[in-house]
Amino acid sequence: MNKLIFLLICATFLQAQPKTENAERIKQFYDTSLTNGHSYEWLDYLTNRIGSRLSGSLGAERAVAWTKSALDSIGLDKVYLQPVKVPKWVRGSKEFALIETAPGITFNVPITALGGSVATPSVGLKALVIEVKGIEDLAKLGRKKIEGKIVFFNRPMQANLISTFAAYSGCVDQRYDGAREASQYGAVGVIVRSMNLRLDDFPHTGAMSYGDQDVSKRIPAAAISTNAAEKLSYLLKLEPKLKFLFRQQCKTYADVWSHNVIGEITGSEFPDEIIVVGGHLDSWDLGDGAHDDGAGVVQSMEVLRLFKETGYRPKRTIRVVLFMNEENGLRGGNAYANSALTNGEKHIFALESDAGGFTPRGFSFSCSNDEFAQIESWKPLFKPYLIHYFEQGGSGADIRPLKNKYNVLAGLRPDSQRYFDHHHAENDTFDAVNKRELELGAATMTSLIYLYDTYGLVNSLPSALKQ
Amino acid sequence: MNKLIFLLICATFLQAQPKTENAERIKQFYDTSLTNGHSYEWLDYLTNRIGSRLSGSLGAERAVAWTKSALDSIGLDKVYLQPVKVPKWVRGSKEFALIETAPGITFNVPITALGGSVATPSVGLKALVIEVKGIEDLAKLGRKKIEGKIVFFNRPMQANLISTFAAYSGCVDQRYDGAREASQYGAVGVIVRSMNLRLDDFPHTGAMSYGDQDVSKRIPAAAISTNAAEKLSYLLKLEPKLKFLFRQQCKTYADVWSHNVIGEITGSEFPDEIIVVGGHLDSWDLGDGAHDDGAGVVQSMEVLRLFKETGYRPKRTIRVVLFMNEENGLRGGNAYANSALTNGEKHIFALESDAGGFTPRGFSFSCSNDEFAQIESWKPLFKPYLIHYFEQGGSGADIRPLKNKYNVLAGLRPDSQRYFDHHHAENDTFDAVNKRELELGAATMTSLIYLYDTYGLVNSLPSALKQ
Repeated sequence: MNKLIFLLICATFLQAQPKTENAERIKQFYDTSLTNGHSYEWLDYLTNRIGSRLSGSLGAERAVAWTKSALDSIGLDKVYLQPVKVPKWVRGSKEFALIETAPGITFNVPITALGGSVATPSVGLKALVIEVKGIEDLAKLGRKKIEGKIVFFNRPMQANLISTFAAYSGCVDQRYDGAREASQYGAVGVIVRSMNLRLDDFPHTGAMSYGDQDVSKRIPAAAISTNAAEKLSYLLKLEPKLKFLFRQQCKTYADVWSHNVIGEITGSEFPDEIIVVGGHLDSWDLGDGAHDDGAGVVQSMEVLRLFKETGYRPKRTIRVVLFMNEENGLRGGNAYANSALTNGEKHIFALESDAGGFTPRGFSFSCSNDEFAQIESWKPLFKPYLIHYFEQGGSGADIRPLKNKYNVLAGLRPDSQRYFDHHHAENDTFDAVNKRELELGAATMTSLIYLYDTYGLVNSLPSALKQ
Repeated sequence: MNKLIFLLICATFLQAQPKTENAERIKQFYDTSLTNGHSYEWLDYLTNRIGSRLSGSLGAERAVAWTKSALDSIGLDKVYLQPVKVPKWVRGSKEFALIETAPGITFNVPITALGGSVATPSVGLKALVIEVKGIEDLAKLGRKKIEGKIVFFNRPMQANLISTFAAYSGCVDQRYDGAREASQYGAVGVIVRSMNLRLDDFPHTGAMSYGDQDVSKRIPAAAISTNAAEKLSYLLKLEPKLKFLFRQQCKTYADVWSHNVIGEITGSEFPDEIIVVGGHLDSWDLGDGAHDDGAGVVQSMEVLRLFKETGYRPKRTIRVVLFMNEENGLRGGNAYANSALTNGEKHIFALESDAGGFTPRGFSFSCSNDEFAQIESWKPLFKPYLIHYFEQGGSGADIRPLKNKYNVLAGLRPDSQRYFDHHHAENDTFDAVNKRELELGAATMTSLIYLYDTYGLVNSLPSALKQ
């Protein structure tokens, strides 16, 4: 038989056979996740027994040890730790802040130091306040109006955007770059409205950066709760000369060693083709990192467990990677990608869950149009599970360094409406995660990984099979 | 011009013009709901200031008066009350229950009387227990094994169904009919596992019925929390002779008068074509009826307010109906439909929101295939808001009596995963509702009502336009 014809027949067979078998497998993954899942129980342990897991903390190290032992218990072919050096920033004692509208007339307000910030003087920092709606206001105001003051970044997340992640992207520059920018105009500190669409009393931390700014120029930065931001803004209108006092004792130490946690099922036919599923093991220190990203960690572990539990033997190598240090450095994601490159590993597909443990709606993909066409052909398989969102654009921070022109990256996209109510705040706790929503996410991820295991990449087929 | 050609041109114009204008209007509804909505504030009042609203209670009457005044405040063309006679069942003092595995060895368990149940004797009812997985088990066991005992209905909701409403439908016969059926085999009481997918300590009430059973045959019925149901089942395996004691003091009184609350904007072109949007004002007495159905009430009110707020003047009459007594009688829905029939009103479309205030996913429709084709043509208008679920089958209990062969009924379909965590239980409270999710639901409903106002029914067009 002509080789081309043979290949075409194979291709036809591959295209024709799937539907029923695929649908049955996928149903099995959902059924098992919902009736005999481990993700929720694992999340209970990770959040309630271990708790917060900031890089370089004891919690992070306990999470490394425990997830490794949990992966050991499910009978994978390999489980190992990958060393990675991470930053170590420590909050110190609880922050304190107040608004003083006149001598002796004060209002306490909830704040939290931004991750990476320097401390205030130990007695606190007290100054006049200037409110801005964003970094671009600084140049308009100029040094004269800013010097010696605390800059209050108060642009709220845009409520009419349907994706709360889009609203977050439109605001987070205030948090990340605000201190560095304000310092160039002589500001002495910055207070940033929490990245939260809801009005409440939780300050939300998150990464900030001074870039390569000289140490002498670095000014302390804190987030203030949305309710308190509204109050400060209101009081500033009544009394522009009010003062703001805040104290924080945070400190950056030398980098320390930590680990990515990795487990894998070796592929039975194409062991060299690697499919990654992961989330990040570190979390901010305020809550228990339940949605961010305990959910992604346990869902990723569950993908491999569901394969084992349902007796599905993958053709390709399926690797779960629990990344260290997504929140304030991305060292785990970079270390993993560097190691993959050094070892000449062929990563065909990677999926990250790092958008909360809410009801899954679908995925976003970083891929070519060819690859996306294949993905779209799988949509009907997901319809019974109300998975409808398949769009190009974006995957996950930890896997992004793996991108090359051949492979496909994806991110799970759960319902985003409640995510920023909890993100990086004290209330990112186990009770905010619904068992079924978490389990549906795990099954949805498993189904996509299964389809990539079954069909591989469009672009890696021999050229005769394409068209 | 030939009349047919004229009509065809009109039809073409109607079909061609819409998209941009429709999309802009819909964006305005979403923007306004999310940035300047009233639904959340209204729900705060309804749940936290008024609270539970069981038919015939003071709470229900306060809700009638307050929603009428709220509708009065938004400048509708008419606001009025429609009298309806409702049942009055009163829980009485808090229920009490325990499992006695041996004399003096007891475990207290949380129960709640089912709505409509008779009381136990004032000292309580104590008997042996027989566990069943459903009504069909009663005949298999026979009178001998059931007589003198408490029947414990313990079939759980099926966890692997994606729609939790499907799981509810598959179980709720135990609650509704269990007592009547068990009594025919000589049972002295029934305990029903709460209709809840989660394992927790909240008992969930809900309607039950004795049908036309003689008063002397009626036995008391209560729901037990899912955790306690698991415990009772487990203890029964260890000690089949254990006894269950429960006491409840509930009572049915004579019917009393209450009201549906109705408000409307009179149509500018077709005032006789009526479009209804509604939810039910009554709730069970345990929580504050936040999701069931405070959410539907305030969303329905918000539809008309969004029309006023955005300056949209409907062509058809848009009527909000807040139905009384959905939970234990459906008297409000029936009274409304009877009145519509008596007055010869032409209801072309009705939409109910009674599935919780969670993120909206779409709608289900009770309609012909022709009408459904029109609905499907609107799907692209909803895509930016992640509204993807448009299916035939079911609408809402209160509007169902309005169905005829011409009109279309619909139900809002929010994400259902968390709904039964709160349904008919003490934790159906304001804090379980997310502001954005509620507001997205209101905007989604407004958009569909707007499209029906704009295009009307397919089947009511002159026959020359159909094909």
